[in-house]
Amino acid sequence: MAIQVSVVGSGTEHEANAETVGLLLAERGATVVTGGLGEVMAAASRGAKSAGGTTIGILPGETRAAANEWLDHVVVTGIGHGRNLAVVASGDAVIAVGGRYGTLAEIGFALTLGRPVVVLEPGWAVDGAQRAQTPAEAVEFALAAARHTGVT
Amino acid sequence: MAIQVSVVGSGTEHEANAETVGLLLAERGATVVTGGLGEVMAAASRGAKSAGGTTIGILPGETRAAANEWLDHVVVTGIGHGRNLAVVASGDAVIAVGGRYGTLAEIGFALTLGRPVVVLEPGWAVDGAQRAQTPAEAVEFALAAARHTGVT
Amino acid sequence: MAIQVSVVGSGTEHEANAETVGLLLAERGATVVTGGLGEVMAAASRGAKSAGGTTIGILPGETRAAANEWLDHVVVTGIGHGRNLAVVASGDAVIAVGGRYGTLAEIGFALTLGRPVVVLEPGWAVDGAQRAQTPAEAVEFALAAARHTGVT
Amino acid sequence: MAIQVSVVGSGTEHEANAETVGLLLAERGATVVTGGLGEVMAAASRGAKSAGGTTIGILPGETRAAANEWLDHVVVTGIGHGRNLAVVASGDAVIAVGGRYGTLAEIGFALTLGRPVVVLEPGWAVDGAQRAQTPAEAVEFALAAARHTGVT
Repeated sequence: MAIQVSVVGSGTEHEANAETVGLLLAERGATVVTGGLGEVMAAASRGAKSAGGTTIGILPGETRAAANEWLDHVVVTGIGHGRNLAVVASGDAVIAVGGRYGTLAEIGFALTLGRPVVVLEPGWAVDGAQRAQTPAEAVEFALAAARHTGVT
Repeated sequence: MAIQVSVVGSGTEHEANAETVGLLLAERGATVVTGGLGEVMAAASRGAKSAGGTTIGILPGETRAAANEWLDHVVVTGIGHGRNLAVVASGDAVIAVGGRYGTLAEIGFALTLGRPVVVLEPGWAVDGAQRAQTPAEAVEFALAAARHTGVT
Repeated sequence: MAIQVSVVGSGTEHEANAETVGLLLAERGATVVTGGLGEVMAAASRGAKSAGGTTIGILPGETRAAANEWLDHVVVTGIGHGRNLAVVASGDAVIAVGGRYGTLAEIGFALTLGRPVVVLEPGWAVDGAQRAQTPAEAVEFALAAARHTGVT
Repeated sequence: MAIQVSVVGSGTEHEANAETVGLLLAERGATVVTGGLGEVMAAASRGAKSAGGTTIGILPGETRAAANEWLDHVVVTGIGHGRNLAVVASGDAVIAVGGRYGTLAEIGFALTLGRPVVVLEPGWAVDGAQRAQTPAEAVEFALAAARHTGVT
């Protein structure tokens, strides 16, 4: 199995960063896991596909209708925001790009479960989450942490 | 239906505050909703019962075994940390007392859903959550916000 | 804590039976737990309230908006059909009154978790679930099974 | 995106059938989605991999520890039996091979969500689910139903 890295967040202003994060993860052979919807989730998936990577989207609704177009595999959970737990639990590491309260919930869950979390600046400041200044640094930190902790 | 206020958090050093919060909520006629386990959850429930209030615990496991002894009603969810979403969604307002990453997830979910959140100092600092210096102030803020927003 | 019995099902033609089930449970001191919406869920809650009982509704949505009017306490889960697991897990026993596929999922989950299940005729025939001919018999079977197994 | 077919069930005596179902689905280009654990889930995944197919496992726990070894992608949900909803919701069609109460819950959820369900004999008899006599027939029915309904 490839390493899986979850990319969480939101905000159109963070899409360029998310796309680069997705691209770099794919170049390093990591599968990109997201919540499957738009903005940061779509951008990270698009970036991964542009580098020939693999993408998984974990959707909140009961159908695939809201999925973005850059997903190879779609998990339809039917549990609304409860799927945020699955998004971060499915990553060997988690990278947060932008984001608001849903992202905060994801960071909280990831740290609860012992998943390494990297926040790409600017973003939520949470003790226990590593901070990165660039997409390259975020990917580097996430992959190093994933290998080190072997959380899953 | 009585107003329901969810009390979230953890940490034995915050139990005294949580107990006072529970007691004051009960005195004001609010039902106290928690995650149903120990520490802050148990203390808030105990405080509510000491004032003749009503308590509901929303448990993560598949049985009632881990419930504390101050619960009038127990909801057994079977969905682990996913139950944090239900704990905060069930409150007309949410009060955080201490707490670590699970509490952060709850604050994130509460604000995602538009529930008013009051953090009793010391605690997580999150934009969008009101801060209170004392249990009395936390209860005051929570009940005022619950009535004002009428979120549910 | 009072014994909690979950009443599941749907179908307007089963509402009279559900109301009697709720009433009899309340007369026996059991708290009635349902999915909190209409038809069988509303009828069972209404019956319980008519006998001065206590009712809890465990809702699928993110607000209390869809709750019926006979609930003392409302748990808002936000996890859609995933809340069916919580509805049955929260009962010391489960009574199914009518119902279609969602009820089948609830019967499946209840038996998975070892909760005693009573199906009031007519209803799903599932090995492992007891069958009752009348509301009184359903309540009798459910309370006896709840006390015998002590599942929670 | 490839068509996704969820294979649910349990029972060691059904593993040979499940493996054939997985193999045939993979030969037809469908991705095989399961609950990611042992017996029928492992056998279906193994069958799919033996034909060069793609497999996704949607796990109940908080880590990847219980995953079988024939999964390309793992979704860790952390929501216990609640993940059954995600397993069936993620399929364009669902095939049940053997199974007990958890499978019954999955059939109930699948039909609730409008997913076509095929039960491979012997198995649960549920109105609304199609019955197949052989693995080949089950796969045929599932793929035809998936294309016809276009549920997702």
